[in-house]
Amino acid sequence: MKILITGGGGMIGRKLVERLAREGSLNGRTIGQVTLHDVVEPAVPADAPFAVTTVVGDISAPGAADALVENRPDVIFHLAAIVSGEAEEEFDKGYRVNLMGTLNLLEAARSAGNVPRIVFTSSIAAYGAPFPEPIPDDYILQPLTSYGTQKVCGELLLADYTRKGFVDGIGIRLPSICIRPGKPNKAASGFFSGILREPLAGHEAICPVDDTVRHWMASPQAATGFLVHAAEIDGAAVGPRRTLAMPGLCVTIREMLDGLRRIAGDRVADRVKFEPDPFIRTIVAGWPENFAPDRALALGFRADPDFETIVRLHIDEELGGKIAD
Amino acid sequence: MKILITGGGGMIGRKLVERLAREGSLNGRTIGQVTLHDVVEPAVPADAPFAVTTVVGDISAPGAADALVENRPDVIFHLAAIVSGEAEEEFDKGYRVNLMGTLNLLEAARSAGNVPRIVFTSSIAAYGAPFPEPIPDDYILQPLTSYGTQKVCGELLLADYTRKGFVDGIGIRLPSICIRPGKPNKAASGFFSGILREPLAGHEAICPVDDTVRHWMASPQAATGFLVHAAEIDGAAVGPRRTLAMPGLCVTIREMLDGLRRIAGDRVADRVKFEPDPFIRTIVAGWPENFAPDRALALGFRADPDFETIVRLHIDEELGGKIAD
Repeated sequence: MKILITGGGGMIGRKLVERLAREGSLNGRTIGQVTLHDVVEPAVPADAPFAVTTVVGDISAPGAADALVENRPDVIFHLAAIVSGEAEEEFDKGYRVNLMGTLNLLEAARSAGNVPRIVFTSSIAAYGAPFPEPIPDDYILQPLTSYGTQKVCGELLLADYTRKGFVDGIGIRLPSICIRPGKPNKAASGFFSGILREPLAGHEAICPVDDTVRHWMASPQAATGFLVHAAEIDGAAVGPRRTLAMPGLCVTIREMLDGLRRIAGDRVADRVKFEPDPFIRTIVAGWPENFAPDRALALGFRADPDFETIVRLHIDEELGGKIAD
Repeated sequence: MKILITGGGGMIGRKLVERLAREGSLNGRTIGQVTLHDVVEPAVPADAPFAVTTVVGDISAPGAADALVENRPDVIFHLAAIVSGEAEEEFDKGYRVNLMGTLNLLEAARSAGNVPRIVFTSSIAAYGAPFPEPIPDDYILQPLTSYGTQKVCGELLLADYTRKGFVDGIGIRLPSICIRPGKPNKAASGFFSGILREPLAGHEAICPVDDTVRHWMASPQAATGFLVHAAEIDGAAVGPRRTLAMPGLCVTIREMLDGLRRIAGDRVADRVKFEPDPFIRTIVAGWPENFAPDRALALGFRADPDFETIVRLHIDEELGGKIAD
């Protein structure tokens, strides 16, 4: 089996290829070759039991998508995207990569002719306030950002190309990923990971919203689980609505910090300081908090069991099991 | 005031420009110039009180949209589209005109810099079965045709370009238009108009579905009313969800034919024969039947009062008041 991962150098892409390297197979078939594509050289997992090819380039460049599918991959994980903050600041770049890049990839896959399974990562940014509580699977997608707009267009294109038999697409609307490893960034949602990752690494962290704020989250490990399950699932069982809201945990800041305290103790949890930021609070108030992802649950997608698990997974996988004093 | 109408040669475009010619103004401002664009030479209304320019071309051709907005129209009615049957048969053409043509127009309007009101015609093809009864304003848009997919993408782009302040867009999801004048065509929905238009013109007509089938309809006159109202409405009152499901009449075939009988008598109504066509019945079963267009109603959009009115409007406007014996 041949696999293509666009955005293979990103956080989710890295976790996915590491998992594929550990497992060696997908949907019961041995993986022979994986192509990792990104705008910067993607990391190649050590000891992968399959050949790994890396390709550096822009998916929206002329011919780029065609070159990527030239070897007719059986499964394409299309993760490449300009993230929400950048798509909002750089309007043209966001549309070029997120909309035209996705369209180019679908066209290239159609031309290749082997009807690959394409797993497309959409996002809860596909939704825009106001929201019912919880948000059902048939709630309208009316995004309030360019990124969300591009993701919903991608979902719609994926469904139509699938309906026409050109590709076999499954889209997954990912929750916010928490705990996101790496450095703090300026994303408005960054604090959801920061208030856990930084204290666990021995640093103070600022929480800019009240502890009653709720959000919809999944661990990076749950997200890679969604990707693998979306690659393996029977497309006929999904029906014509090809993109599914993924399950997640709806937790408050208070519940997150209680989870951190139970796992890592008072010394770590007390490193979080509350400094309300009205600007961030206003942004966050427009985000969806809670879903009823009945379709995805019925199709076997599974969220993290609880927030402590999310904290433990981060400690084990990113900190080698060791919490900073 | 300057106005651009893309698809100005189509049925709705013709009715719209005739209405504008009668009224001479839009939103309280005198109309000075109207550009009618279409792929074939559009008809120019006689005695229009404003200058009319016609442009023949393909909106998706390079530079075409830029040329159309060069004079910075205040209002753009974007009606140009490959219709549903053709977009389904000619996949690439449908995407080129309906998706890229709309994107080109939005980009051209953004470059022109005068933030025009853009009235975009979407369709009930934006929805895909299964449906609640009636369909609320916040029901998910999951089209089951390429045409519907392209229309929803257009809606989303319109909303995002509006949110960014590049244009001032209002989208309207039109019901099926009935009674559509002209020759019978091969559209699966053609019989909804044919079973009225043909008997009124002295011809027999075949109804391929049971008389219990319901559909969501508006007269061409109601549709031009929606367009004018969408051009005049206060955008701030609409909010970020820029496309509105239009009001219509939810009527059964039986109610349509009863209306025809009351207006035109037994001799005309008896010209309709029932010949069930399982193929068409299956297609029609996937179409939405009934909406609760609360937002549009609150914003002052109005449907035809009853089906007899739809029949009378056709007799008056298309048949010079005369029913064929």
